[in-house]
Amino acid sequence: MRIDGALLERRLDELYAIGDRGLYDSAWAAALDRVEGWMKGAGLKTRRDAVGNLWGRADGDGKSIVTGSHIDTVRHGGRLDGALGIVAGLTAVEALLRTRGKPSRPLEVVAICEEEGSRFATNFWGSRAITGSIDKVDADIAQAMRERGLDPAKIRAAARDDIDTFVELHIEQGAVLESARTPLAVVSAIVGTAHLEVTVTGRPDHAGTTPMDLRLDALTGAAAMVQAVESIAKSLGPPAVATVGKLEVEPDQINVVPGKVIFTVDLRHSDLGGRRALEERIRSLCTTISQERRLGLAIRTLQEKPPVAMHPDVRSVLARAAKECGAAATEMVSGAGHDAQILAARCKVGMLFVPSIGGRSHCPEEATSPEHLELGTTVLAKALELLAY
Amino acid sequence: MRIDGALLERRLDELYAIGDRGLYDSAWAAALDRVEGWMKGAGLKTRRDAVGNLWGRADGDGKSIVTGSHIDTVRHGGRLDGALGIVAGLTAVEALLRTRGKPSRPLEVVAICEEEGSRFATNFWGSRAITGSIDKVDADIAQAMRERGLDPAKIRAAARDDIDTFVELHIEQGAVLESARTPLAVVSAIVGTAHLEVTVTGRPDHAGTTPMDLRLDALTGAAAMVQAVESIAKSLGPPAVATVGKLEVEPDQINVVPGKVIFTVDLRHSDLGGRRALEERIRSLCTTISQERRLGLAIRTLQEKPPVAMHPDVRSVLARAAKECGAAATEMVSGAGHDAQILAARCKVGMLFVPSIGGRSHCPEEATSPEHLELGTTVLAKALELLAY
Repeated sequence: MRIDGALLERRLDELYAIGDRGLYDSAWAAALDRVEGWMKGAGLKTRRDAVGNLWGRADGDGKSIVTGSHIDTVRHGGRLDGALGIVAGLTAVEALLRTRGKPSRPLEVVAICEEEGSRFATNFWGSRAITGSIDKVDADIAQAMRERGLDPAKIRAAARDDIDTFVELHIEQGAVLESARTPLAVVSAIVGTAHLEVTVTGRPDHAGTTPMDLRLDALTGAAAMVQAVESIAKSLGPPAVATVGKLEVEPDQINVVPGKVIFTVDLRHSDLGGRRALEERIRSLCTTISQERRLGLAIRTLQEKPPVAMHPDVRSVLARAAKECGAAATEMVSGAGHDAQILAARCKVGMLFVPSIGGRSHCPEEATSPEHLELGTTVLAKALELLAY
Repeated sequence: MRIDGALLERRLDELYAIGDRGLYDSAWAAALDRVEGWMKGAGLKTRRDAVGNLWGRADGDGKSIVTGSHIDTVRHGGRLDGALGIVAGLTAVEALLRTRGKPSRPLEVVAICEEEGSRFATNFWGSRAITGSIDKVDADIAQAMRERGLDPAKIRAAARDDIDTFVELHIEQGAVLESARTPLAVVSAIVGTAHLEVTVTGRPDHAGTTPMDLRLDALTGAAAMVQAVESIAKSLGPPAVATVGKLEVEPDQINVVPGKVIFTVDLRHSDLGGRRALEERIRSLCTTISQERRLGLAIRTLQEKPPVAMHPDVRSVLARAAKECGAAATEMVSGAGHDAQILAARCKVGMLFVPSIGGRSHCPEEATSPEHLELGTTVLAKALELLAY
C-alpha cells in the first residue's frame, strides 16, 4: 500500500496556510471545514460532536478503531504539531479504503477540537469531552462555543464508550530520534509531570559592607540547587528530566545581596516510581543545601500528573506494522503530553513518533523530512489495517 | 573631655523625627534649619554655600579642619546614616570650643546637602560641588535648587581649596565590627567597585521532550557562574566581595529550558590590583563554564570606580586619638561609598566607623548602641583636637 507523499505535504501546507488556530476561533473553524471536505472526498461519513470534535467514519462491526490528532495550534506554532496526526490519519484511511475496501471494524478519523490550552485554560478539551470528564464550562468558553453553534449544556453528549483503540502519529518535538538517526518510534509511555515551586529565603544585605562569610545569600543557595536539579536528573539517566524554567530574585538590585529567590522545577519520568525518586532526591538535596547555608526553604507542589503507559497490545501492533514496512523503529517515552494520555481512560491507546529536525517544535521552524512523514504515515496505515481489517 | 551622650541621642532623635530627606525637599530644608540652629547655639558662624551645603565655622589660621556628613537619607532609611556624622561632629566641636576655646586652625562642621542619590541621580552631589567637579545641572535638579533659593548657574562657587583635612564619623553599615566585638574602626580605604553585566545564551527547548544531554540550558550555566563568583571572592579572602544581585531568565516559563540569562556582578576590593584580580578570575571562570557547556557568553562593564585610600596622616591621627581615649580600634576597609572618597581629590581625608547592630542599614532597624555612639564621638573630638589645636 502506497501513501501519496505529495498529497500529504499539500494538505499540511493548506492547514498551515490557514494560520494559528485557537479553540473556536475563525481559523479553527476554517481548518475544520477544510478537513471535513477531505473526509467527504475520501468517502467518510462526517459529523461534529457536542464539543466541536470532527469525526469521519467508515462503518464496520463492533467498537471503533480511531486515528487522528488535535486541530488547534499554539500561538506562533508550526506546520506539524496536531495537523500531522489528522492529515496522516486521513490519508492513511483513504489509502486503506481505496486498496482494501470496507473495514471489518468501524474505522474513524478524528480532528480533536483542542489540546494545547493556548486560547483558554482548557488543555485536552476535546479528549476530555470524549471521555465524559468535563463537568463545567467556563463562561468565556461557553460564549465561544455558542458562536460556533455549539450548546455548552450538551457537552456530555460528546462522550463515547464505543472506541476500541486510538492510534496517533505525532512529531517527537525533541531531538532524540534525530540524534539516534532513527526514523520512527513506538511510544511506550507518556511521562508523568510534577511542577514544584521552591522558595529560598536568606537576608538582603549591602553588597559592599557585608563580607562573604557573614552573608545569607538566597541566590547562591538557589544556584547550588539549580545545579543539583540538573545533576540528579543526569545521574538518574533517561527518561528522567528536570528543568528549572522560572527563577525570580528579590530585591533584584545590583548592589544588594539577594534576600529571596523563588524558582520552579519541572520533573518528568515515564514511571511513577522513577518520577517520585527524582522528586525525592531533589527535595532532599535542596534541604541539605539550605541547611548548610542557613537559608529558609519551602517546597510546594503546583501540579502532579501520573505517567500513562501506552497499551501493550497497541504497542505490539505498531511494532509489527513498522517491521512489515521495513522501518527501523525504536521505543521511546514521550516527554510531552498528548490526547492519548486522556483517552487511555476509555480505550486502548498507542502513538508513533517521527523525528523533529533539530528537535524544534511550537515554532515556525518545526519540521520533519518528507521521507519521515511518508514513512510514519505508511506505518500508521499498516497498523490501522492490522487493527480494522 | 566629656561628650554629652544624652544630647547626641536627642539630636539624632530630632533629625529622625523629621523623616526621610530627599535633596532640596521640605524635610531636607527643615533638617538643615534645625542643624543651623544647633551650630549657632554652639557659637559657630554659619553659611549656606551655592549647592546648599551648610557650614558652621570657628575661625583660626591656615586651612580648615572639617568634620561632618550628609544630611540627606535614602527612602525608608534609618536614624544614623549621615545624621550621625553631622550630629557627632557638631557635638564634638561644641565640646572642644567649651573646654579648649578658640582653635589654632579654622575648625568647621559641614552638613553636606546630598550623598545618597535617592531623589535624583546625583550621588555625592554636595561633595562634588565642594571639589568643583559639577559641570552641568540637569533641569529637574535646577528647578529644585531654585525652589530653595539657590542659583544653579553659580554652583561652582561652592568649590573650596582651603580645606586641609576632612574627618567623618559614620556607621559601618555591615556586621564586621559587631562580629569581631570591636567598638571602633579607623577606615583604611574605601573599596573600588566594578559592575558587570553577564549574558549567557543557550537554546530554549521543551522541558519534557529534550533529554538532559541534548540541552543548552542558559540557567544551569549561569548557576555555575553564580557559584563561581561566590567561590572566587571567598578564596581571595577579605576585603574582596562579589555579589550577583540581579538575575533574569528568558523565556521564564515553567516548562521551557531557559534560553537566555542576564545577571549582574558587583565586585569590590580596597586595592585596585585586588579588584582587577577578582574581576579577571571571574571573567576567566565564566568563560570556561560557558565553553564547557557550549553556551554563548558576553560580559559588559556597566561601571568602574577605583578604590580610594584614606590619607596616612589622618589614619595615624585617628589611631592615636583612639588610643588616647582608651578605645580598642581596628582598621578596616569601607565596602560602601562615602563623601570622603570624593573630597580625597582636594584634601586629606579619614573616617571612623562605629558598629551597626546586626549589620543593618538603609532601613528603620539601623542602630548603634549608645556606648558606641558616644565612644565614636569622643574619639572624633580627640582627633579634631589633635588636628586643630
